[in-house]
Amino acid sequence: MTQNYRDFYDEYVPLISKQMATDLATLDAPAVLKEAMLYSINAGGKRLRPLMTLAIYHAFGHTIDTSIIRVASALELVHTYSLIHDDLPAMDNDDLRRGLPTSHKRFGEANAILAGDALLTQAFVWLANNQLPATVQVQLVRQLAVAAGATGMVGGQVEDMLGAQKTYDLSELQQVHNRKTGALLSYATQAGALMAQVDVAIVKQLGEFGQVYGLAFQIQDDLLDVTDNTDFERNTYPKLLGLDGAKAALQTNVEHARQIIEQIAATVTFDHELVSGFLSYFERKN
Amino acid sequence: MTQNYRDFYDEYVPLISKQMATDLATLDAPAVLKEAMLYSINAGGKRLRPLMTLAIYHAFGHTIDTSIIRVASALELVHTYSLIHDDLPAMDNDDLRRGLPTSHKRFGEANAILAGDALLTQAFVWLANNQLPATVQVQLVRQLAVAAGATGMVGGQVEDMLGAQKTYDLSELQQVHNRKTGALLSYATQAGALMAQVDVAIVKQLGEFGQVYGLAFQIQDDLLDVTDNTDFERNTYPKLLGLDGAKAALQTNVEHARQIIEQIAATVTFDHELVSGFLSYFERKN
Repeated sequence: MTQNYRDFYDEYVPLISKQMATDLATLDAPAVLKEAMLYSINAGGKRLRPLMTLAIYHAFGHTIDTSIIRVASALELVHTYSLIHDDLPAMDNDDLRRGLPTSHKRFGEANAILAGDALLTQAFVWLANNQLPATVQVQLVRQLAVAAGATGMVGGQVEDMLGAQKTYDLSELQQVHNRKTGALLSYATQAGALMAQVDVAIVKQLGEFGQVYGLAFQIQDDLLDVTDNTDFERNTYPKLLGLDGAKAALQTNVEHARQIIEQIAATVTFDHELVSGFLSYFERKN
Repeated sequence: MTQNYRDFYDEYVPLISKQMATDLATLDAPAVLKEAMLYSINAGGKRLRPLMTLAIYHAFGHTIDTSIIRVASALELVHTYSLIHDDLPAMDNDDLRRGLPTSHKRFGEANAILAGDALLTQAFVWLANNQLPATVQVQLVRQLAVAAGATGMVGGQVEDMLGAQKTYDLSELQQVHNRKTGALLSYATQAGALMAQVDVAIVKQLGEFGQVYGLAFQIQDDLLDVTDNTDFERNTYPKLLGLDGAKAALQTNVEHARQIIEQIAATVTFDHELVSGFLSYFERKN
């Protein structure tokens, strides 16, 4: 039976948020540290990554329980830590995030750095402390660490900063985004498949879906930032491809993503309509 | 057969250092990030924590191979990340570490933060990518994450900073150090026992050994910092206990640690002389 994406979203986004807040609140940790961790976790957000994990797990016919929500939410801890550290004065030096003062504005720079460190570390507690088989837990840990670290998200952030002094060509820009955004989204999709314990070839296909989704996400982001049709920002898709070219690239990636999902549904029992629902994100705004 | 602590030290410290440098150098990551990670890893240090893990593993009669050194070294990545972040301008604002410019002095603040993040994350890759049984890997991941995060080292660092504005009593000070230093040392000792797959009661005893060792380590550190016998720094053992009291507390903890090791050796085959060798650290300097 197919589940409607919108209903799924409405049901699980609040459950993800509640699970994280409840779990973090019980930590035996200094009050100011917990407050800083909860502040950024409770600041909102689409919960796109854990929701993607849960949807894919569910699409294979599995029932989602509290323990599974916790495993999926580990990824949101990593995403949130990355935002806290990206906002720091030494990096993007942002005062506001989602309409609220950034962590370092609210708690000071030292506490913001440490709250980020603690969220990242806590993600691995959640992955290693649940009812899943140990072999699955280990795969989740390994893949999240690879996706989030030097070869993935942190590496992408370094390349992104280097981009302030140089102009990337299309393949370089794509690598930056594959690391910075794609790696975690690709983990999100693979995590759902790993938890469902499906064939490794399917895990790989879903990883590709996440990667392609991440690229589409970034092109969309660049397009939404365009305010002047003639003077695009450096190291963006509109600058490299032009406005129409970037829009065409977005559509190509969205189509590719949809094909992967349909291919999977042609092979195994898979609620492709639920997962395709995530592509609606790209339909509404351009 | 008993192994001499000094020989063990001389054999394995270089192997730990080499293993880390070799592994990090092969990462497919931006050059400047790898350089920053390697810079801090190659800056030296006693490699106390991974050496402790290896010694305990070996004390149970197991042969140490490359894969085991890598697992033990994950802890040194975590220790090194913590030093990089502690040195940052927003925290201790140190210019030098082990006689070299600190990471942020050498690579800039953003790269230092990210190099720390990447080292922490890489530790979990190493724990989850080796020949150990998945059940052991998961225990290592869970215990390291608990020891390094909000409830352990990061929490201790927050409490340590709060100490700049308040005076701790003895039990509060002990909690700060249990979190900040004891938790990782307790992980170090437990990791060796977990890898050796010994009884859970022995793992726990070794965890206590690490905790007590960590306290002794901190008291020793405070004693070495004493430059004036009448005006001790706030939130140190000499301030709370006096110079003689602190020296006595150090000896009590060292004795306690030695007893734990001898108790274990009375129960199972365990090279207690090798492990007791780590207590020689406290004999030389006071």
